[in-house]
Amino acid sequence: METKRTGRQTVFLPSQPSILSAACVGGKKESEGPLRKYFDFLSDDSRFGEKSWEKAESAMLDLCFTIACEKAETAPADIPYIFSGDLLNQCAGSAYAMRSTGAPYFGLYGACSTMAESLSLAAMMIDGGFSDMAAAATSSHFCSAERQYRYPLQYGSTRSPTAQRTVTGAGAIVLTREGPGPYITCVTTGVITDAGITDMTNMGAAMAPAAYDTLSAHFRETGRAPDYYDAIVTGDLGVVGSDILRELFAGDGIELGVRYMDCGRLIYYIESQDAHSGGSGCGCSASVLCGHFLHGMREGLWNRLLFAATGAMMSPTTNQQGETIPAICHAVAIENRRI
Amino acid sequence: METKRTGRQTVFLPSQPSILSAACVGGKKESEGPLRKYFDFLSDDSRFGEKSWEKAESAMLDLCFTIACEKAETAPADIPYIFSGDLLNQCAGSAYAMRSTGAPYFGLYGACSTMAESLSLAAMMIDGGFSDMAAAATSSHFCSAERQYRYPLQYGSTRSPTAQRTVTGAGAIVLTREGPGPYITCVTTGVITDAGITDMTNMGAAMAPAAYDTLSAHFRETGRAPDYYDAIVTGDLGVVGSDILRELFAGDGIELGVRYMDCGRLIYYIESQDAHSGGSGCGCSASVLCGHFLHGMREGLWNRLLFAATGAMMSPTTNQQGETIPAICHAVAIENRRI
Repeated sequence: METKRTGRQTVFLPSQPSILSAACVGGKKESEGPLRKYFDFLSDDSRFGEKSWEKAESAMLDLCFTIACEKAETAPADIPYIFSGDLLNQCAGSAYAMRSTGAPYFGLYGACSTMAESLSLAAMMIDGGFSDMAAAATSSHFCSAERQYRYPLQYGSTRSPTAQRTVTGAGAIVLTREGPGPYITCVTTGVITDAGITDMTNMGAAMAPAAYDTLSAHFRETGRAPDYYDAIVTGDLGVVGSDILRELFAGDGIELGVRYMDCGRLIYYIESQDAHSGGSGCGCSASVLCGHFLHGMREGLWNRLLFAATGAMMSPTTNQQGETIPAICHAVAIENRRI
Repeated sequence: METKRTGRQTVFLPSQPSILSAACVGGKKESEGPLRKYFDFLSDDSRFGEKSWEKAESAMLDLCFTIACEKAETAPADIPYIFSGDLLNQCAGSAYAMRSTGAPYFGLYGACSTMAESLSLAAMMIDGGFSDMAAAATSSHFCSAERQYRYPLQYGSTRSPTAQRTVTGAGAIVLTREGPGPYITCVTTGVITDAGITDMTNMGAAMAPAAYDTLSAHFRETGRAPDYYDAIVTGDLGVVGSDILRELFAGDGIELGVRYMDCGRLIYYIESQDAHSGGSGCGCSASVLCGHFLHGMREGLWNRLLFAATGAMMSPTTNQQGETIPAICHAVAIENRRI
């Protein structure tokens, strides 16, 4: 049997699974940002009716996944495989959100790359013949992330200019073998890279080389030039990281140009919302893909989109021990027409 | 296209990928236990030459993965997909261990079920036609887990009789499309269950219902009775949890009998090593499978083994917030002859 690989990191999916439905949910800050109209639900209450930030994150992801299932006209228990993960220690956000589904569950940890990781694996499950349907989901919450990675909110620490703000948001996608599209045509899986960055307030710099590595592999292994796509979307490099990525490609003589966008840069009004380097967190790329970008694809604004979510894989403990920050980027090609 | 599913949670893998190589590494306590002779490497130094417990865990997993690759006569960079995860916050054990491989990496979080989760997905990658080879790996370390989940080691807290001891150990498996066997024939993916347990010192009670749920689904969906297997192996229910599992099946009129074993119960001399309810941690089922059980299969002691690793998906934070403990169990059928 010949494999579907076209290179070290890339596979084409002959069956080209379809996105049947997608949903995204956000918090208050996201409801004040430029992409607010693409969210399925925006909560003024950052606690989502719960007593803790962690429970709020699970409730938000649960709600998002429920909306995606409703749009797919499928009961959560009838989803053959759920792939989900988040930033909380032990990925508790996902485990508690998916506890009530009764569906087979694969827990992931890909930091902020989780939407692309989960989408890759869900599409591969269908393409591999293991099911006719699969779901991908993830979330992040500003308040649960802030106290876990940085300081208690009440401490009121000042933020570095390079710092990104963890998005309070969730995204979920239901894929099917047959469907109206857009279609997942190709998956490039990331390798862990390490640019030697130790500054946890500069994730963009740590993750940009991972995005460069995976996108370069994608272009090389597929034979597709960047202009094959009308949108190349990184996860959450933010202002700092996306500028670095442009520079890295410029060094190869490639100008990414206007087709290149970054979810972390898009989700907030950088200046007026005091968003420093932009948004981050699993929920950033997840909600911007599931809202803004998939809406734009349905409208025909973009027909070929390369979604490349990036993640920084350190923990506060490893950082305190002086370790550098490893990063990863997974890329998924999403196209309105089957290839 | 017909899917390979034979039920809600179970797929047969027509290509039946082969275990090409397996390796396991353990610490000092493991070197004093009854399974010591099946480890590829046992370290008297719990720090594995590193300055922190977290770095030690990564070094141990790195070593284990390197040994598995050497046995497979493959460079780590030539592994098409690595599936790995661990218990550390942000799964940092795996990210740092796999940082140097240069291989496409999918990070997982399945708590102590990770060896079965990673083995499931690695086998499905091959069976789905995405590669001819894939690797599954995981680790846990007593000292990094103890201070993360419980107390600083120096505190010298007393342990509850139901408590399990996190194994210092790692396991890694390289799978190939063709090979000498044993073969992965069938995968049953777990659903998150919650038995309402809140006691973090009684993981066996929290996880036994998940094992019961997945094993029951496996028997029901495959049409295989428990006596199809000559070994049914749970991850790390320990003494308490494995007794509960026997009782749950006895309630259905099924006596699991001597073919049923638990890795947490096997890895230590329960009495003389003062192991309370036995071993736990991702590295428990991983090292016992990769050492003891695969050795026994190669010797012909067992020919059909059902490996069902169990995980408790809570975090210390959710526990402190009064949440109950969700659990999951994934099962993988490993057989000496293709079916």
